[in-house]
Amino acid sequence: MTPPFLTPLSAQDLRAAGVPPEWRYGIRDRVRFSELDALNHVNHTAYLRWFESLRLPYCRAYGISDYDEASPDLVLKSVGATYHAPMFINEDYIVTARTTRFRRTSFRMEYAVFAPECRIEGFALVVLLQRNGEGRFPLTDTMKQTLIERDGAVAEA
Amino acid sequence: MTPPFLTPLSAQDLRAAGVPPEWRYGIRDRVRFSELDALNHVNHTAYLRWFESLRLPYCRAYGISDYDEASPDLVLKSVGATYHAPMFINEDYIVTARTTRFRRTSFRMEYAVFAPECRIEGFALVVLLQRNGEGRFPLTDTMKQTLIERDGAVAEA
Amino acid sequence: MTPPFLTPLSAQDLRAAGVPPEWRYGIRDRVRFSELDALNHVNHTAYLRWFESLRLPYCRAYGISDYDEASPDLVLKSVGATYHAPMFINEDYIVTARTTRFRRTSFRMEYAVFAPECRIEGFALVVLLQRNGEGRFPLTDTMKQTLIERDGAVAEA
Amino acid sequence: MTPPFLTPLSAQDLRAAGVPPEWRYGIRDRVRFSELDALNHVNHTAYLRWFESLRLPYCRAYGISDYDEASPDLVLKSVGATYHAPMFINEDYIVTARTTRFRRTSFRMEYAVFAPECRIEGFALVVLLQRNGEGRFPLTDTMKQTLIERDGAVAEA
Repeated sequence: MTPPFLTPLSAQDLRAAGVPPEWRYGIRDRVRFSELDALNHVNHTAYLRWFESLRLPYCRAYGISDYDEASPDLVLKSVGATYHAPMFINEDYIVTARTTRFRRTSFRMEYAVFAPECRIEGFALVVLLQRNGEGRFPLTDTMKQTLIERDGAVAEA
Repeated sequence: MTPPFLTPLSAQDLRAAGVPPEWRYGIRDRVRFSELDALNHVNHTAYLRWFESLRLPYCRAYGISDYDEASPDLVLKSVGATYHAPMFINEDYIVTARTTRFRRTSFRMEYAVFAPECRIEGFALVVLLQRNGEGRFPLTDTMKQTLIERDGAVAEA
Repeated sequence: MTPPFLTPLSAQDLRAAGVPPEWRYGIRDRVRFSELDALNHVNHTAYLRWFESLRLPYCRAYGISDYDEASPDLVLKSVGATYHAPMFINEDYIVTARTTRFRRTSFRMEYAVFAPECRIEGFALVVLLQRNGEGRFPLTDTMKQTLIERDGAVAEA
Repeated sequence: MTPPFLTPLSAQDLRAAGVPPEWRYGIRDRVRFSELDALNHVNHTAYLRWFESLRLPYCRAYGISDYDEASPDLVLKSVGATYHAPMFINEDYIVTARTTRFRRTSFRMEYAVFAPECRIEGFALVVLLQRNGEGRFPLTDTMKQTLIERDGAVAEA
């Protein structure tokens, strides 16, 4: 039996939870005690952990990486986050991801946390590398098409 | 709507998952990337985080603390863990807790992680303090009865 | 010579370590095992921890906050990091901070990690709030003067 | 004087800091903001991180592992900690380690945190495995002799 948690929400569930339609990939989770800092709210780095946790199944689901020998290495070039409102112990939230832009060997993901209003937004610029250390790994046509069809991603020069 | 994850499992669900009957309180969760260390398995401290995360709702559910002004301060006197088998990325598991023994102002909790066989066991010795700093807080009769009835906890001299 | 870890380095020490002259505040530290992730390099969130750890003594040293009742609350509005090269276990590094711009009630800090070349850069936009919850806290003239004199910070409209 | 952080302290420095003579290996460090939890003291798991951070250079210094292909795999069988007094932001401390007992393929390390009185004690039972997966790795005579001579470790049946 697949446990009914920590699995990607359907479009219907995302919409029912008030997540805007541009977000197509998200999961539910709950704030843990260990994510709080001495100020009693979620530490600013915890959200980047949430984005990281979501990035892995996202990249697998979108056909970008199976995290095996045939897959590219995914390397973070840069990340960022903007904090709209703090989060507290035991709050339930939905964390979402999508790709907004891609180039030949990189793509820009965006993230948001809804509880239910948008509390935090973030991004990551991900670069694809050959696993043998021989330079960049170009996004395949299938990968590009998936990013365009599912997320409305835009190709950049 | 209560999200169908990260909430205590019913006795029926625990038994269906193969968790032995002495464990009456547990939740499902899944290994995250951030819980791995450089050896590619879950770091030994992550399990103590899981126990901590479970201890909070357990103590609330068992009527030991509402984490408010009227509740005792719960202080860890000691903790420990024994590692039977490592855990890896994306594994689903059930983490469980119970109280095995209590004294006038302290109780001993035990923990286990099932996936589905028992991978890790742990314990914590918890001391109750007055919130005003004036010494120990005795377990009430109601608390003791709950620990006995639900978990089969044993009173110690 | 034993390296003077964990205390702010003198300008002379920073220059001797090859840190460019625009960086006037920094400490030495060393990569820990717990900062690595399953890819065997320092996890991308660890650097934001390093910046956070440095931000506290920086704000105290620059007279922005004593973290007491008379001091403003410092709130993160946004953060970001750019990764130039990975870091590995046991590497010694210098993490540095400076303020580049300020407005009436906020300032932008920048960070860098040298080992000895620049491996990671980051920033944080910090907002000052009244501790009683009654809105923004304006930077005092003394604070502004310190940021200008020590770091060459620029006032923005 | 600038404290000699992050490098093993000499016996003289340990004694000068009031660390009892049975502790021969230790380093200085300082509590970080990220080690605090919502209760404003160091989280109970942070100390196990400190022990882990110390275990690595200890095992290298005592000739037990160079963490290379010729070295055994070191696996934790169990850990524990006892908390005597809490620790707070910016406190300086010395964390120490020693081996008290060993068997054919395992050894028991103990740890303590002094600031300057003993705040926390801990232990870890470490098992040595062949790196090729073919079972246990026996402690060599040289390793045993080092543990006996430096730490006064005792051989167990």
